[in-house]
Amino acid sequence: MGGVVVQTVERTPLDTVDGLSACGVATVHEAMGRTGLMRSFMRPIYPGARIAGNAVTVSIAPGDNWMIHVAVEQCREGDVLVVSPTSPCEDGYFGELLARSLMHRKVRGLIIEAGVRDVRDLTEIGFPVWSKAVFAQGTVKETVGSVNVPVVCAGALVNPGDVIVADDDGVCVVPRATADTALQASRARETREAETRRRLMAGELGLDIYGMRDKLAAKGLKYV
Amino acid sequence: MGGVVVQTVERTPLDTVDGLSACGVATVHEAMGRTGLMRSFMRPIYPGARIAGNAVTVSIAPGDNWMIHVAVEQCREGDVLVVSPTSPCEDGYFGELLARSLMHRKVRGLIIEAGVRDVRDLTEIGFPVWSKAVFAQGTVKETVGSVNVPVVCAGALVNPGDVIVADDDGVCVVPRATADTALQASRARETREAETRRRLMAGELGLDIYGMRDKLAAKGLKYV
Amino acid sequence: MGGVVVQTVERTPLDTVDGLSACGVATVHEAMGRTGLMRSFMRPIYPGARIAGNAVTVSIAPGDNWMIHVAVEQCREGDVLVVSPTSPCEDGYFGELLARSLMHRKVRGLIIEAGVRDVRDLTEIGFPVWSKAVFAQGTVKETVGSVNVPVVCAGALVNPGDVIVADDDGVCVVPRATADTALQASRARETREAETRRRLMAGELGLDIYGMRDKLAAKGLKYV
Amino acid sequence: MGGVVVQTVERTPLDTVDGLSACGVATVHEAMGRTGLMRSFMRPIYPGARIAGNAVTVSIAPGDNWMIHVAVEQCREGDVLVVSPTSPCEDGYFGELLARSLMHRKVRGLIIEAGVRDVRDLTEIGFPVWSKAVFAQGTVKETVGSVNVPVVCAGALVNPGDVIVADDDGVCVVPRATADTALQASRARETREAETRRRLMAGELGLDIYGMRDKLAAKGLKYV
Amino acid sequence: MGGVVVQTVERTPLDTVDGLSACGVATVHEAMGRTGLMRSFMRPIYPGARIAGNAVTVSIAPGDNWMIHVAVEQCREGDVLVVSPTSPCEDGYFGELLARSLMHRKVRGLIIEAGVRDVRDLTEIGFPVWSKAVFAQGTVKETVGSVNVPVVCAGALVNPGDVIVADDDGVCVVPRATADTALQASRARETREAETRRRLMAGELGLDIYGMRDKLAAKGLKYV
Amino acid sequence: MGGVVVQTVERTPLDTVDGLSACGVATVHEAMGRTGLMRSFMRPIYPGARIAGNAVTVSIAPGDNWMIHVAVEQCREGDVLVVSPTSPCEDGYFGELLARSLMHRKVRGLIIEAGVRDVRDLTEIGFPVWSKAVFAQGTVKETVGSVNVPVVCAGALVNPGDVIVADDDGVCVVPRATADTALQASRARETREAETRRRLMAGELGLDIYGMRDKLAAKGLKYV
Repeated sequence: MGGVVVQTVERTPLDTVDGLSACGVATVHEAMGRTGLMRSFMRPIYPGARIAGNAVTVSIAPGDNWMIHVAVEQCREGDVLVVSPTSPCEDGYFGELLARSLMHRKVRGLIIEAGVRDVRDLTEIGFPVWSKAVFAQGTVKETVGSVNVPVVCAGALVNPGDVIVADDDGVCVVPRATADTALQASRARETREAETRRRLMAGELGLDIYGMRDKLAAKGLKYV
Repeated sequence: MGGVVVQTVERTPLDTVDGLSACGVATVHEAMGRTGLMRSFMRPIYPGARIAGNAVTVSIAPGDNWMIHVAVEQCREGDVLVVSPTSPCEDGYFGELLARSLMHRKVRGLIIEAGVRDVRDLTEIGFPVWSKAVFAQGTVKETVGSVNVPVVCAGALVNPGDVIVADDDGVCVVPRATADTALQASRARETREAETRRRLMAGELGLDIYGMRDKLAAKGLKYV
Repeated sequence: MGGVVVQTVERTPLDTVDGLSACGVATVHEAMGRTGLMRSFMRPIYPGARIAGNAVTVSIAPGDNWMIHVAVEQCREGDVLVVSPTSPCEDGYFGELLARSLMHRKVRGLIIEAGVRDVRDLTEIGFPVWSKAVFAQGTVKETVGSVNVPVVCAGALVNPGDVIVADDDGVCVVPRATADTALQASRARETREAETRRRLMAGELGLDIYGMRDKLAAKGLKYV
Repeated sequence: MGGVVVQTVERTPLDTVDGLSACGVATVHEAMGRTGLMRSFMRPIYPGARIAGNAVTVSIAPGDNWMIHVAVEQCREGDVLVVSPTSPCEDGYFGELLARSLMHRKVRGLIIEAGVRDVRDLTEIGFPVWSKAVFAQGTVKETVGSVNVPVVCAGALVNPGDVIVADDDGVCVVPRATADTALQASRARETREAETRRRLMAGELGLDIYGMRDKLAAKGLKYV
Repeated sequence: MGGVVVQTVERTPLDTVDGLSACGVATVHEAMGRTGLMRSFMRPIYPGARIAGNAVTVSIAPGDNWMIHVAVEQCREGDVLVVSPTSPCEDGYFGELLARSLMHRKVRGLIIEAGVRDVRDLTEIGFPVWSKAVFAQGTVKETVGSVNVPVVCAGALVNPGDVIVADDDGVCVVPRATADTALQASRARETREAETRRRLMAGELGLDIYGMRDKLAAKGLKYV
Repeated sequence: MGGVVVQTVERTPLDTVDGLSACGVATVHEAMGRTGLMRSFMRPIYPGARIAGNAVTVSIAPGDNWMIHVAVEQCREGDVLVVSPTSPCEDGYFGELLARSLMHRKVRGLIIEAGVRDVRDLTEIGFPVWSKAVFAQGTVKETVGSVNVPVVCAGALVNPGDVIVADDDGVCVVPRATADTALQASRARETREAETRRRLMAGELGLDIYGMRDKLAAKGLKYV
């Protein structure tokens, strides 16, 4: 049926992207009103990675990684590749060779609602991946899909040029239009949390810091 | 509908608790006649943690972590917080700030049949969690539940003051009334296993150590 | 109903086995025409292990590990134990003591479509396991099964003496009859990949290296 | 390790049991403050069955149905058999022959957190089962368990003599001590719902019947 | 955090909607280039229902059905309610009373990526539901969400006013802008399939009707 | 990589096949020593179907149903088509048109470890399918696989010409070489069960019929 490669994508400035990366997934997700998270089955292949980047999206056939090769050419510094199969699949679409190619273009990582392989090599060369599975299963190159179209990946809508934030807690999508707002809200949240952290470490209770006791009583909580 | 916080919980002495911790989940579970295990989907957020403590239980609404704040106040040194939603949920009820508060009270860890977030921070500060998922998804504070009531968590019944033993093999519940017996049986098992280990490492076979050959033949096993 | 232990198994020479180990699961699986992989739920208990060995197979009852003791005696240097329950089960059939016994016989690892326990100890002593679950749940010794019969393990057919290759990407089965061919094809693939890697790292695109542009256009891919 | 059969079980009067059956699972669960439900994977083998009965509980080994034969003798008119394996298992513990035996004793149905078989026959003879799976897999008779001890089944605690209510919506456990209260609350709920149903069918909105508009506005809901 | 109810939704004309209903999910999905399907876990509560309608969407908190009451008022004849929780949940958000209210407004069915209850009553009154689970678990009314905003439901993006087609094969989303095109393509497909059906029933092979033999040979297929 | 179609398959005589069909899955599986069952996720698309036939096997790429068209030509009266993807997939490989083609050739049903669609039509025309999913997702025709080679389907090894027995309890594989033995053992089992059924319906207990009381006591069962 053919597919399409959109070559012109408006991206979010890397200053904003890097700011979101520093805040991390949980904070950004909260700052956006608890939206944008991918499903919890999206797990990093090694712990400790923490990235953000502009989404280059790939809609791809099950068991067929041809379009990833097409997508590589559309990537530039600061991008994150987001791959979503058109039906559920956990085949190993991606391995170390493709990572080499993306690293040459300064791509920061891969988000794929499917499988990945060569995870030992990917760990050694430091190319982070969040995936649904680790699976050596090979794929074919027969069916054309699309690059830089809107995709639903792991339950979240991703438009090309949206910001992807990923760390040990999972993957979050920040729409390009609200990336600056999300960054400001995230930083404000961090500031508030720093003060709360100080008080909690000093032994104060959340019950008191957040003024919860009256509300709990009003809802009928009984101490016995 | 309201809820209840039971403030007086009979706990197991920490000497017994610590003895069980040293034995580990697999040994304690065997010593109790193969009972008390939580489901295998309860996994530690980082490897190597090994704890035991007195259960402070929390029955909590899906997607609502209000009662964890209430439960913190009920915790004391040597406790382990056990959180079970009233219906299946994998939201991220718990993160680094709540861990700070629990650490101040010398709580040893969290067992939650749901999600947890800030796992990188929790790893760095050394607060162990066994959970069903890692998920950044935020929760609300609207619905009242209960603290220190019996709960079923990941398929196991937990009463307040029961001993929770948790390590890389999972999570095991030791009823308070039988904690001493379980500890003695666990230690006896360890002694027996040390001797078995010595013989196996010297090349003897389990078939001979356990005297299995006749029983296998009686059951009809054929060598060809 | 009784069972059978086949004591004479034709094995693959260890030179071939070790060659396959060096190539790794993804390469060997591709070199065999993308066949032989076990399901992706078979995960290593710790990262970094990379083994190959001759399969000693065990068909075993759910929740009953008796036949593993029987199988130990059938193992020799360079073997890998492959355990498949007759119905789905995730109990902890295997732990550190059995690993001691297998290590004495220079067995290289365990593949089990079920659970394993003592994973902290197994990690410390360096005995690698690929399993469906980590679960402390104990098992009984009541029902006889079979050793060195064909089994289906995690979706793959395993005959005794087949080569098992396992690493961070999963587990692959190489039939004994084609092990040499698989090794040659794997090494040829590695040679080709080394050249591709060099070119990708220099910035060439897979689109050009593999000559994909014309085929993509013929399939109707449009750039916009 | 041996097991135990408790022969004396205090049951709930059948008048109360039958009253709960008429109310159905959803109503009874709500009337008890939204407690007592088994997990949603417990599904009836055919639609339309609607039962309640006194629980005779069975704690049973994985893949071993011996104790069901023991439990049959403990059953009497108005009972429901509740079977929970000591570790997750979906084998077919139960089929038409055992149903014949239970029907002779006027047992009303089976709740099993495992598999069942002969479902065509069971449908024809009208013996209802709620199970985790339909699976022909046979079981052995080797390991002793217990009858009429507390069990956790599909996430719910069941004590012998508790009332089990089951219909197309699933399975609910009513503790014996609160069965009368639950029945009264269920009937009160039915009365209220009848009036609500009448108003909804006449075109009134829940927003108005329940007086929700002000509360929604107070929570910040905006109409645009 | 508040939410929003969008009251003005452009709908697809019911002529088009009804045409799509007659074609069915598989045909419409194919006619749209194999797009728009929800995940396969979305199953009808009873067989044989076949509907299409304009989507009224609801973004809703886990375990909280308040916004369904709000959404009812936004529904009109020919609509289908589409409910998606903000995090995975299988609670029983919906039952017979809400169905009565929707039926009064001539709503054609419910699509919910969560649970439903009262399925026996819903079957009797003929209100079709496609859901992730059947589960009696009750919900609260505490948290505000949104109505008629874009949602991702079971992996598919749904905008208010899109056409939902649902039958025994699952659920498909047709964007409003392409609904007419989809209908024409679906009908064209039906015409072609009628001719193919006639030939297949007369004994011709798909291999010949579709002219596959040469292509298969070119791809290397061997007959032995 | 090409594939192969084996055109000459030794089949099991239909007398034997039909005899096995009459016995049903549970009985045949037991009579074969509890072997040959496919996983429990293989469910019929409608209740009540009961078939047996000679396996025509298809090894097929994920999301690509081309080889089913090839396989149709290899089918003859009394066959059952068995389709197994080379990696996990639930796409809708098969629908009403292919069923028409198979029905013309007097094929008795389809076993597919993947998805199926048009289930309403398949139900109406009476073509039974056992599948992993019902899913409208369409497939491509790009990659060649093989027909009549050994496959692992839903955890069971199937060789071409083996007997497939399928009913409401699932799917069982009877190796061609032992089909006669399996039939005799199944019929013997049926005879024994008829007598047991008579006694159970008269009120005797399995405990007495099978002489279990002494064995239970010997294993340590206590009555209290």
